[in-house]
Amino acid sequence: MRICRIAHAGGVDYASWDEEGFTLLLDPFGAHARQAGLRVPAARARLLAPVEPRTVVGMAHNTGPSDRGLPPAAFLKAARSVVGPGAAVRLPDDGGRVVAEGELAMVIGRETADVRPADLLSCVLGFTIANDVTDRTAQSRDPLWTEAKSRPTFTPVGPWIETDLDPADAAITVTVGGEAQTASTKGLARDPEEILAYLSRLMPLGPGDLVLTGAPGAAVAVSRGDDVSVRIDGLGELTNPVEACS
Amino acid sequence: MRICRIAHAGGVDYASWDEEGFTLLLDPFGAHARQAGLRVPAARARLLAPVEPRTVVGMAHNTGPSDRGLPPAAFLKAARSVVGPGAAVRLPDDGGRVVAEGELAMVIGRETADVRPADLLSCVLGFTIANDVTDRTAQSRDPLWTEAKSRPTFTPVGPWIETDLDPADAAITVTVGGEAQTASTKGLARDPEEILAYLSRLMPLGPGDLVLTGAPGAAVAVSRGDDVSVRIDGLGELTNPVEACS
Repeated sequence: MRICRIAHAGGVDYASWDEEGFTLLLDPFGAHARQAGLRVPAARARLLAPVEPRTVVGMAHNTGPSDRGLPPAAFLKAARSVVGPGAAVRLPDDGGRVVAEGELAMVIGRETADVRPADLLSCVLGFTIANDVTDRTAQSRDPLWTEAKSRPTFTPVGPWIETDLDPADAAITVTVGGEAQTASTKGLARDPEEILAYLSRLMPLGPGDLVLTGAPGAAVAVSRGDDVSVRIDGLGELTNPVEACS
Repeated sequence: MRICRIAHAGGVDYASWDEEGFTLLLDPFGAHARQAGLRVPAARARLLAPVEPRTVVGMAHNTGPSDRGLPPAAFLKAARSVVGPGAAVRLPDDGGRVVAEGELAMVIGRETADVRPADLLSCVLGFTIANDVTDRTAQSRDPLWTEAKSRPTFTPVGPWIETDLDPADAAITVTVGGEAQTASTKGLARDPEEILAYLSRLMPLGPGDLVLTGAPGAAVAVSRGDDVSVRIDGLGELTNPVEACS
């Protein structure tokens, strides 16, 4: 099932999405996501980021097989840096070099506390696309990476959560200014299950939280006026215009 | 006004607290926190953490005047690591050395985006106490500090938000195992206004978010069986028992 969060005449709701449009959903993080029966035509809805997380965590250096030699490491991104499809990514006005990193993201469906490592994948509601926008200049200046990862608009997410995806070999294509680069999640040093086993000891995760699994491809520089798109098979395409800060 | 979050027979609510008990509050983050008129006796309510933030950010090396020579730096703590008064701080089972850091915390009342630096203090709803529990062993191992700061229960907060406090010279006393240490917020390298000016460029902050302003005193090691208390004049006392993980 494709789960979205939409803004429509009736307000903001979760909805499932099929060829005919949206059907509002009650309690998508509950035991069974129930359809409310209310339908909203696609033309009358605007996609928002599909979650409002409390925690957004990304995996550092999870790019390729050689990273397996490094201990796992993770970083937090400010939850409010999340924006949805079509929202502008705003470049800071201090001239830093900003890149896009296209990533497969896990959406957590239930709390991971007290769940055995072997069962952690059952805490995952589904998968979506995330763009881990990063200020490379700030990243080399700030060893904590806080100045690099959490700027307003630096975490585009969407367009939908797919509850039925095999994340093992998904092609991720990042396109900026017409130039596309593709890599596969099978190149990630650590897979979703290993990532959750690492993270669940280190921090509490709960419904709506996002785990960015790492960028198997190269990061791509973005500039004002670009559109940046991240496409993942089965998850659609996440496109955001890049603008100056003010 | 003292603003709390309480669990009571009617559920979980915000409330103002005076000598006679609690008065439920509607919309404490709205333009005017309105009393709902419903009263709950103190004996029939349990204090929770006074906020459910989406962002918990702390200031690194803001301990004393010599830190002014360093550029400001900040770190994120997982939002779900927040616990309330009386909740157990659970030590990880991997043997790391854990310390308590008693800090004055700002509670953000409205979004800081697009607010001029000179007006940022008007985004602060009030102040509360936070304990920035930190695994020192993990902190020296993980340059991103993620493994050190975000464990479940590592951010006790409370007991209340004081909306009418001058943060300039507040005594912070940390007591563990009967030994107390006191320092003043006037020792902090950067004050709340400077902290907000720094942070508001780097990340979006909004209602309920917490900004930990730094520990002017020494961090204090905690062990299983201890009670750790942080007292700040005007903000009460935040006490949490320290337990093993499982």
